Amino acid sequence: MQRRYRDSNEMRPYEVPLTGLPNPSGGARHWYVPASDRTVHWGYFSKSLAPIIEIDSGDYVTLECLTHQAGDDPARLLRGDAGAESVYHWTAQRKNVDRRGAGPMDAANGAGGGQGVHILTGPVCVRGARPGDLLEVRIIDMYPRPCANPAYADRVFGTNLAANWGYHYLDLMEEPRPREVVTIYEIETTSGREFARPLYNYRWGPVTDPNGVIHRVYDYPGLIADPEMQRPQRDILRNVRVPIRPHFGTLGLAPKEADLVSSIPPNYTGGNVDDWRIGKGATIYYPVSVEGALLSAGDTHAAQGDSELCGTAIESSWTGLFQVILHARRDVPDRSLLAQVQWPLLETRDEWVVHGFSHPHYLTDLGEHAQRDVFMKSSVDLAMRDAFRKMRGFLMHAHRMSEDEAISLMSVAVDFGITQVVDGNWGVHASLKKSIFTDYGASP
Amino acid sequence: MQRRYRDSNEMRPYEVPLTGLPNPSGGARHWYVPASDRTVHWGYFSKSLAPIIEIDSGDYVTLECLTHQAGDDPARLLRGDAGAESVYHWTAQRKNVDRRGAGPMDAANGAGGGQGVHILTGPVCVRGARPGDLLEVRIIDMYPRPCANPAYADRVFGTNLAANWGYHYLDLMEEPRPREVVTIYEIETTSGREFARPLYNYRWGPVTDPNGVIHRVYDYPGLIADPEMQRPQRDILRNVRVPIRPHFGTLGLAPKEADLVSSIPPNYTGGNVDDWRIGKGATIYYPVSVEGALLSAGDTHAAQGDSELCGTAIESSWTGLFQVILHARRDVPDRSLLAQVQWPLLETRDEWVVHGFSHPHYLTDLGEHAQRDVFMKSSVDLAMRDAFRKMRGFLMHAHRMSEDEAISLMSVAVDFGITQVVDGNWGVHASLKKSIFTDYGASP
Repeated sequence: MQRRYRDSNEMRPYEVPLTGLPNPSGGARHWYVPASDRTVHWGYFSKSLAPIIEIDSGDYVTLECLTHQAGDDPARLLRGDAGAESVYHWTAQRKNVDRRGAGPMDAANGAGGGQGVHILTGPVCVRGARPGDLLEVRIIDMYPRPCANPAYADRVFGTNLAANWGYHYLDLMEEPRPREVVTIYEIETTSGREFARPLYNYRWGPVTDPNGVIHRVYDYPGLIADPEMQRPQRDILRNVRVPIRPHFGTLGLAPKEADLVSSIPPNYTGGNVDDWRIGKGATIYYPVSVEGALLSAGDTHAAQGDSELCGTAIESSWTGLFQVILHARRDVPDRSLLAQVQWPLLETRDEWVVHGFSHPHYLTDLGEHAQRDVFMKSSVDLAMRDAFRKMRGFLMHAHRMSEDEAISLMSVAVDFGITQVVDGNWGVHASLKKSIFTDYGASP
Repeated sequence: MQRRYRDSNEMRPYEVPLTGLPNPSGGARHWYVPASDRTVHWGYFSKSLAPIIEIDSGDYVTLECLTHQAGDDPARLLRGDAGAESVYHWTAQRKNVDRRGAGPMDAANGAGGGQGVHILTGPVCVRGARPGDLLEVRIIDMYPRPCANPAYADRVFGTNLAANWGYHYLDLMEEPRPREVVTIYEIETTSGREFARPLYNYRWGPVTDPNGVIHRVYDYPGLIADPEMQRPQRDILRNVRVPIRPHFGTLGLAPKEADLVSSIPPNYTGGNVDDWRIGKGATIYYPVSVEGALLSAGDTHAAQGDSELCGTAIESSWTGLFQVILHARRDVPDRSLLAQVQWPLLETRDEWVVHGFSHPHYLTDLGEHAQRDVFMKSSVDLAMRDAFRKMRGFLMHAHRMSEDEAISLMSVAVDFGITQVVDGNWGVHASLKKSIFTDYGASP
């Protein structure tokens, strides 16, 4: 695939000083990647994408990430933001990022078919990464992208869409049924007051896109709504403030199994895992599937509950600072933390979290039409089974337990939660507290 | 049904002073219920059981609870404990508590068939309680029952059984398959060191009961094993200490739908909900199903993870101090916290927790053979659906939200977790943090 560049360099990746960041080997560098139509891919992972940068193991990279739902309130989420506008630019004459999703370019609802929705910054190529290796991604920092519209200067906003792919959609009580509803939140990030406050909501759609296609449901990303025309309700969720949990909804590597892979179903290479624990201070390990690993990030969320029930979180643009460490497979000891990691393993300050999915290798397990069929075979029950097996394996291999030890410990000390029921390949995570181990702090 | 009493009074309920307990109305009393063969029922709820005491709304009751798995390590969990021994007493000549479970009295594996396993202290009759009312049960305190065997005097122990009804049982990797394994834990309750430490494990069974029936699997409660004959493994789970979460695995009311109801599947009247949040400081609300409410407690756990994966927690004998408040249905305001509570609503210091089940009213929903069929229709997916609907209703009624407000909030701030996958009627809970409401602290 070809990436189209404009002349200007200002929205391309550049190197910045390593100020304040650990550099034990002395050789680390730090790359800054602005979000622009030249640094993102929209709605899919692909092993065929040309990398936006190449880095070495140990390097740092700052990735600006954009919400793919800025059109829900363009005044607060889009206008005045040159990077975001370059990505969203779409007129009858010109659409800067034409492909949105892994579907056909001639899909009736738009190029790429919206089969995948997230704006992903990347991919970042890690030199020397080979299939079978492990990529450690440390989230060093995460900070919000302030509004660039002078009317709301420097404030931070996000949007939650109760979407047609939500768990509730065909199970509504109030009329009209079904319906899609947008709720706009303002995010306060002042220390000690880190809350999202509901501003207003409105019933979404229909929306006509610049090519004249009428979208009766939210079936294509980047559509621009006009909330004021939708009779917004402003007196909502009074006295509610949502504690924020900033995280990357989508973070992961390109898989080898197909050339164009929707960004929606999470996979063994990560992607749209939608676990709110994947935030600042966390480290996540992914199995490398293709040469160079091809890391992308996006779908930043200000807050989400376990289940992401209505189909989205508080979708909001944030920037992440990552350090990336490559572990060659041959250097991973047999009975060690990473020995059997063939799926996204999350490490936070206090926990290890394994991620189970309805179909852990859906691209191969579900056959030729896997990318379609995975949405018809969503199941918490299957994800629970997978999470059980992964946690058992993790305890046996990384923590050197017998199966009997692992199973007793899982029953009395591991918590299984429902990550999401909205991404086709549904998720159950299992959390193991580090404090359970008296030698916690010793290297694994 | 008839309760058989011996002559001695010492193990019967008695009144104790109300020392140190709030008594705003001036009329509250405090009853102490020792656990004995005269104060427990084993393996079932029943609307036909004669109450062990009658109390008024506002009264306090202390209920000694016994683990039903004391036979896994009788030296540590049973011997020297007069109350527990009176319950467990079973020789070829005499079995103090004959019925164990809701099954037939002539079942091949023992009277009651082990269709229900928990030793339940109660039932407590609440004067004036009528079907449709709500019973508020406050867990004021909870403390462990120390070992009465001089060899382990005053120490506290518990047992975890990886059981034939566990989620893992038919999905084991190591040989022999399948197998049942007991792990014995010692529980340290010194303040600041509240951990359970693994002592040893052994492969359970077969066990021959005093009537000569050979139990190849753990299919009847109260069987007495001899761990020393089972080649116990002592060097297990090194460096592991499990933070304790003392709670009542089973706490709830007798349902009206059947005369004898297995204690295993949780129900709309509570029972074996197996949520570790049902501990000291928590309050739980149940819909009253029969006259007098008929509250029973048992199945105390020192610790459990969300899912109770292997079929049991750290099963351990603890005593609970409860205050019980009756809310007549007519006194519950329309749009209030309790308005629509027709299932177990838990309130902890920080959260409200609703409990979803695969089959929320399984005794009526599943037909004539509901008590058998519920075990064949276990599903996390169904429990998730129920938890979603209950949390939506709770937000709409108790917190006066529109459906759209409720659904957005659920998606960004409510966490759905897997309560248990081992009790036939599987559970998903949804947790809502009180701190979300800026008027938190005001009465609802």
